[in-house]
Amino acid sequence: MPALAEKAAENLRKLRASKPLIHNITNLVVMNITANALLACGASPVMAHADNEVEEMVDHAGALVLNIGTLTDDWVITMIKAGRRASVLGKPIVLDPVGAGATALRTNAARAILFQTWVSVVRGNPSEILSLAGRDGSNKGVDATHTIADVADGAARLARELGTTLAITGVTDLVTDGRRTLMVEGGHALMAVVTGTGCSATALIGAFLAVDRDPLTAAATALAYFGLAGEIAGTRAAGPGSFLVDLLDALYTLTPDELATRCRITRG
Amino acid sequence: MPALAEKAAENLRKLRASKPLIHNITNLVVMNITANALLACGASPVMAHADNEVEEMVDHAGALVLNIGTLTDDWVITMIKAGRRASVLGKPIVLDPVGAGATALRTNAARAILFQTWVSVVRGNPSEILSLAGRDGSNKGVDATHTIADVADGAARLARELGTTLAITGVTDLVTDGRRTLMVEGGHALMAVVTGTGCSATALIGAFLAVDRDPLTAAATALAYFGLAGEIAGTRAAGPGSFLVDLLDALYTLTPDELATRCRITRG
Amino acid sequence: MPALAEKAAENLRKLRASKPLIHNITNLVVMNITANALLACGASPVMAHADNEVEEMVDHAGALVLNIGTLTDDWVITMIKAGRRASVLGKPIVLDPVGAGATALRTNAARAILFQTWVSVVRGNPSEILSLAGRDGSNKGVDATHTIADVADGAARLARELGTTLAITGVTDLVTDGRRTLMVEGGHALMAVVTGTGCSATALIGAFLAVDRDPLTAAATALAYFGLAGEIAGTRAAGPGSFLVDLLDALYTLTPDELATRCRITRG
Repeated sequence: MPALAEKAAENLRKLRASKPLIHNITNLVVMNITANALLACGASPVMAHADNEVEEMVDHAGALVLNIGTLTDDWVITMIKAGRRASVLGKPIVLDPVGAGATALRTNAARAILFQTWVSVVRGNPSEILSLAGRDGSNKGVDATHTIADVADGAARLARELGTTLAITGVTDLVTDGRRTLMVEGGHALMAVVTGTGCSATALIGAFLAVDRDPLTAAATALAYFGLAGEIAGTRAAGPGSFLVDLLDALYTLTPDELATRCRITRG
Repeated sequence: MPALAEKAAENLRKLRASKPLIHNITNLVVMNITANALLACGASPVMAHADNEVEEMVDHAGALVLNIGTLTDDWVITMIKAGRRASVLGKPIVLDPVGAGATALRTNAARAILFQTWVSVVRGNPSEILSLAGRDGSNKGVDATHTIADVADGAARLARELGTTLAITGVTDLVTDGRRTLMVEGGHALMAVVTGTGCSATALIGAFLAVDRDPLTAAATALAYFGLAGEIAGTRAAGPGSFLVDLLDALYTLTPDELATRCRITRG
Repeated sequence: MPALAEKAAENLRKLRASKPLIHNITNLVVMNITANALLACGASPVMAHADNEVEEMVDHAGALVLNIGTLTDDWVITMIKAGRRASVLGKPIVLDPVGAGATALRTNAARAILFQTWVSVVRGNPSEILSLAGRDGSNKGVDATHTIADVADGAARLARELGTTLAITGVTDLVTDGRRTLMVEGGHALMAVVTGTGCSATALIGAFLAVDRDPLTAAATALAYFGLAGEIAGTRAAGPGSFLVDLLDALYTLTPDELATRCRITRG
C-alpha cells in the first residue's frame, strides 16, 4: 500500500524537521526508555506530573502522552487535569492503559481519563483494551492474556463505543477508528522481553500525532516505524540487553525512505 | 554438590514454564533494570505501589518483592499493607533493606517490614544485614563497609533471631535459614559498578521463591544463576555500560543445563 | 593549559581513591543513568528524597546534587531542607535547573533553591541559566533555545549577581565564577539524543566538588572529563543506544593520565 508507506515516511520526515515537544505523564519504570525513544525518533520529550505545572507544560506541547503504570490517585487527577487542558486546546492525547483489567484502580483510571478528556488514540494489548469496554480483560499483571484474534471482530464497534481510535498491539497490530481498520506487521519476539517497549510505542504515537492529525494514520505509521526498528534490532541482538540498545540505534538511524520501502501497513 | 546444581536448573526450568507474576514495590533508581532482569529470567514483573491497589495486585502475584531504596513514609505503609496481604495468603516475600544502617528511616522501615510481615528471605550486603539486628552496621550510604567474613560466624544465629532466611551477598554469597547454611560463588567485580545489581538479585530471589517454597534453596539457586550470568557478562564487557547489556543477555540465554553444570553452591 | 589539565587528572585520581558519597535528589527520568555515571567515575551515589531522611543523608555525603526535573512542591521543600543542612555543614551543592524558564514551578523552584541554600555550582543550558536571572529564557520544555554565544558576554556578571559559579553547557562549555572564566571543549552530538547526559554532567560536578573545593576548577575539570568520555564514545557508537553504553564504559576506563593529555580547558 504505497500511500500509507509514503505517509509513514512523510510523518517521520516532519517529526525530525519540527522536533515537537511531547509531554509525558508516564510510569516510573519506563520514563527513561520513553524519553530515549522519543529523542531517537526526533521528538523533544518532557516529563512533568506536578499538579501546578501540567497545564502550563501542555501549552508548550505538540501532544500529550498519558500512561497509567505505577499509578496513584494523585497522578490520575493530574493526568485528567492535563488531559482536559489538551482537550480544550485541541491538542492530541494518546492513552496507554497499562494493566487495565488487573486492578480496579487501573481500570477505573483508564476509563476516567477516557471519558473526561478527548483521547485521540488508546494503545494497549488486547486484554487492556477489552477491559476498557467493561468486558472481562482477565488481565494478570500487565501482560496480555488475550490475542489480537480475540478482539479483531469487535474492535471497530468498540472504537465507536469509546469514541476514540484503538491501536491494539500484538504479533500483528490492529488500528481502527471505528470506520477504517489498518493492520501493521513488524516487531520482534524480544520486544516482549524488554520492559517499556509498549509504552515507547505509545509515546511514538504521541509524536506522530503531533505532525499528523488523523489518529488512524498517525498510530499506524508510528507502529510501522517502531515495528521496523524492532525487526532491524532483532537481527543484531544477542538477547534483551543488546536488543534495547539496537532498538534505540535503529529508531535513530532509520531513514524516511527506508521506512517507506520496508514498512508493512495494510487495510484490515 | 550435584543436588543443589540440579535444583538450580529445575527452578529455572519451572520459572520459564510458569512465568509467575512478581509484584515489586521497589525504588525509583532500579525499577527499570529490575523489571528487565525479571523478564530476562522468564518471570512477569509488575510494579505497583498505590495504597488502593497493592492488595489486589498481591492477589495475582506469585511473590512480593519489597525494596526500601528511595523510601518515604507512605511507601513504608504501602509495603507493609502489601506484605500483610501476602503473609495472610502464604505468598513468599523477599525484602531488600537498601541502605539500612545509613539512616533511621531506612533501618526502622526495614525492621518494621520484617516484624509486621512474614518475610521469607532478606537479601542485603553485610552492613545492611547487621543493622537489622540492632547492631552497628556503620553503613555509609548504600554500599557495604563490612565483609562476609565479618558476619559469617553470627549469621545463622541472626537468621534464627529474625525468624527469616538471610542471603548476604559479597564476593562469596552466604545464605542461611538458621539451621542450614549455603555458600554461593560467582559474580564479577563490575557488578559493584552498575546500580541495581543487588536489587535485581533480590527480585530474582522473589522469582525463584514463586517456584521453590524452600527459602534457602530458592535464594541460593537464584544467586547462583545471577552470579553465573555476571561471570559470563564479565568475560565480554568493556566496562559497566556493556556489562549491564551483557548481563541481561546472559540471564536470558543461560540454559538450565548450563546452570546445572557451571553453578557453584556448597554447604557452608 | 597544563595546569588545568593536571588539575583534571588530580581530581579524577582523588575521586577514585576516596570514593565520596554523593547525595542526589534528582528527577525520575535520570536517576538510573545518574547513579551509573557516578559509579563509573568512582564515586558512591545515593538517592534519597524523604523529608525525614535527607538531613541525615547529607551528614554522610561529600556533596549534594539537586535536580528539579519531574518536580513537585514536596520535592522542592525537601531539596531546600537538604540544601540548608549542606550549607550549614559547608558541604558543596550543585544545582541543575532542568526546564527552568519552561514553567513557573520550575523557574521559581530553581530560584528558591538558589536563594535559600548556598549553591556552589549551577549547571544548565543557556536558556535555563538565563531564566534564573529573571530574564526571558524562552524555554520550550527542557531543551535549550539559546546558545552559549547568547550568554557568553553577560555570564560573569550573572554569576556575580547570583553569587554562584555558572557552568553553562553547549557545544563549548563556559564556566565562570564571576571573576575567572574557563571554556571546555569536548562532547559529541549524540549527547543531545540521550536523556540524562546533562543531568549526569551535573552529578559529576558534584563528585568533583567533593574532592576540589574551588567550584570553578571542579566544574571545568568534571565537564572536561565528561566531554572526553563523550568524544571517545562518539567514535564507537552506532546510535544513541550504543552511545550510552560506550559513554559509561569510557567514564570507567578513562585514566587520569589520558584525561590530562587529551582534555581541553582554556581560559575564556
